Amino acid sequence: MSESKSVAHKTLSGAGLRGQSAGSTSLCTVGKSGTGLTYRGYDIADLAHNASFEEVAHLLLIGHLPNESELRAFENRLLSLRGLPQAVCEVLERLPASAHPMDVMRTGCSMLGCVETEHSFQDQGQALERMLATFPAMICYWFRFVHNGVRIDTFDRTERTLGGYFLKLLKDDAPSEQFRQVMHCSLILYAEHEFNASTFAARVCASTLSDIHSCVAAAIGTLRGPLHGGANEAAMEMLAKWSSPDEAEAGLMAMLAAKEKVMGFGHAIYRESDPRNVIIKEWSRQLAHAVGDNTLFAVSERVEQVMKREKDLFCNADFYHASAYHFMGIPTELFTPIFVMSRLTGWGAHVMEQRANNRIIRPSADYEGPEPRAWLPMNQRNQC
Amino acid sequence: MSESKSVAHKTLSGAGLRGQSAGSTSLCTVGKSGTGLTYRGYDIADLAHNASFEEVAHLLLIGHLPNESELRAFENRLLSLRGLPQAVCEVLERLPASAHPMDVMRTGCSMLGCVETEHSFQDQGQALERMLATFPAMICYWFRFVHNGVRIDTFDRTERTLGGYFLKLLKDDAPSEQFRQVMHCSLILYAEHEFNASTFAARVCASTLSDIHSCVAAAIGTLRGPLHGGANEAAMEMLAKWSSPDEAEAGLMAMLAAKEKVMGFGHAIYRESDPRNVIIKEWSRQLAHAVGDNTLFAVSERVEQVMKREKDLFCNADFYHASAYHFMGIPTELFTPIFVMSRLTGWGAHVMEQRANNRIIRPSADYEGPEPRAWLPMNQRNQC
Repeated sequence: MSESKSVAHKTLSGAGLRGQSAGSTSLCTVGKSGTGLTYRGYDIADLAHNASFEEVAHLLLIGHLPNESELRAFENRLLSLRGLPQAVCEVLERLPASAHPMDVMRTGCSMLGCVETEHSFQDQGQALERMLATFPAMICYWFRFVHNGVRIDTFDRTERTLGGYFLKLLKDDAPSEQFRQVMHCSLILYAEHEFNASTFAARVCASTLSDIHSCVAAAIGTLRGPLHGGANEAAMEMLAKWSSPDEAEAGLMAMLAAKEKVMGFGHAIYRESDPRNVIIKEWSRQLAHAVGDNTLFAVSERVEQVMKREKDLFCNADFYHASAYHFMGIPTELFTPIFVMSRLTGWGAHVMEQRANNRIIRPSADYEGPEPRAWLPMNQRNQC
Repeated sequence: MSESKSVAHKTLSGAGLRGQSAGSTSLCTVGKSGTGLTYRGYDIADLAHNASFEEVAHLLLIGHLPNESELRAFENRLLSLRGLPQAVCEVLERLPASAHPMDVMRTGCSMLGCVETEHSFQDQGQALERMLATFPAMICYWFRFVHNGVRIDTFDRTERTLGGYFLKLLKDDAPSEQFRQVMHCSLILYAEHEFNASTFAARVCASTLSDIHSCVAAAIGTLRGPLHGGANEAAMEMLAKWSSPDEAEAGLMAMLAAKEKVMGFGHAIYRESDPRNVIIKEWSRQLAHAVGDNTLFAVSERVEQVMKREKDLFCNADFYHASAYHFMGIPTELFTPIFVMSRLTGWGAHVMEQRANNRIIRPSADYEGPEPRAWLPMNQRNQC
């Protein structure tokens, strides 16, 4: 065993590469001095308060904040790229109503790659913009087909932004300006987070020089896991059980006593707070007021207080996303597909970065299996 | 920057984690003292010469070589699990003839996950056996539908083994016993290879506790890249251009002079030789004799000699797979899907191993982007 592997052995084994560098990036910093999140140097709070999602997508995918004409051109490209291919619609119609919405996204992405294959890396920007423009329609087409029996018009261009487009397709009604703003903010908050597991999966896939749809499908499947995406859905399912702050506190105390996992708290990297929480919490508060909620926001705040008091844990980005999405009438099962629409920008930027300076990601493993052993003919094998 | 990250910085950055441990495994050793490959302690040559692929699949997925009754039971389960769901067939029929066969596999796997979702890790063994039993049909159903316009009977049970089943579905004719044996051997040689990129992608996906179809779809997409799977296809495309050993030597020398990449030689881990090469080369020689080939095998041997003489490079497992598959009448574009049918056993075993002792795989990155910078209102951004 070489010296370097010996060092690695002590620090890495079984630890999920936590705290270990697996490469370099220009896209994002996470948790410098225990908090903080920047996209290409810009603070997440500045982006969430001032930018549209399309501006942030341009920042991540193209490399800089767009000026007015660049933004208009980018938005126009995304508008022109709307509309699912007929073959993709036909596949979506064959996915059962019982399918997991993330399986729908993974399959839709994979199918898009079959009919609009990326044949050259020169096509990567176009392919990513096409996915950005069609993913909102992909989930809504399936959802409305299996639940309402309608075939929505995925070419709809009445809403100019991706957040508005998603809400329009989902509810067949123009969203309020406030809802559009919350979608912007949410899509910005989830857009990028350094070498999180789904992004790392996309980079591993990209490192074999595979196509962009394979990279994104790998990332979708990885985000699907309950340790990654899905925390806001789990938080919503928990919160929905309680009809008052006092009931929530009693229920939560019982969960903690039973050592049940409470989703939406703490973070693998952040130690003190999640900089995204304060932003989405304020939107959740405003939405509660706008829709006349007297329960869910108060329940959420009580849960936050009890988790701080009992466990010294802080809310992460997922916790108040649950109530915010709920107030906008978004079904809980679609929370993680929204994460996909957003994080696609980060995945895409990381894939392009990996391709620009690639070496195949092929680590080694510590072997702890049987020593070399002789072949065992079948008649000498143990009977069970 | 902490001490451990500082160490990691020097050894890992940009190096694709080469030579660095990313976890532990009991499944496989690769390249101990520069050569060698074992599955759970058994030498690859013993397995390739003595076992059926089903025995090796049992070894990898269930943990030990089966005795006679276990093997019969395993084979019977795989037989009973044949046959694609109607919805999967309908999706496959919508994939164009121009689709990349690996995109077909990725989409078929993803679709299977939509209709037969793994709801609990208790289902993982059954789900993997189902994929093992259906993947040969998945690629053949699409291939024969788009090229021959026929809907094959995927429930066909006239061939007991997976290798025979694949050849039967592909050609609508019972394969020779020799062809069955070569398929066994080939599927065994490709079954497992430690933390290669596709397996590592599957483990990253599994580490978020995602479902098994997401893990396998991620692995398929990763294998699709030309730096990973696809080398045997590329080798075949090169070899097919030459009609004699002398022509091959002249063509190869020209490629080397132009610094073109020659696929099927060298290896990321092996330094002296690939232990799988001698095995598949011998089968290729016997097949050449059986089918009356006077060109391809001789061309292949000349290429091997020239690469040794000029570059001191050895054939890897992929090189003689090209001619072996070609002699069996397998279209070049289906070479990598066969890799999928085989490596599925390794991927599945690694996913189960990851789940049994999981921590989310979430490395860090070295940041080399812009320093923190102030928000820039749109009217202050540069014009392009």
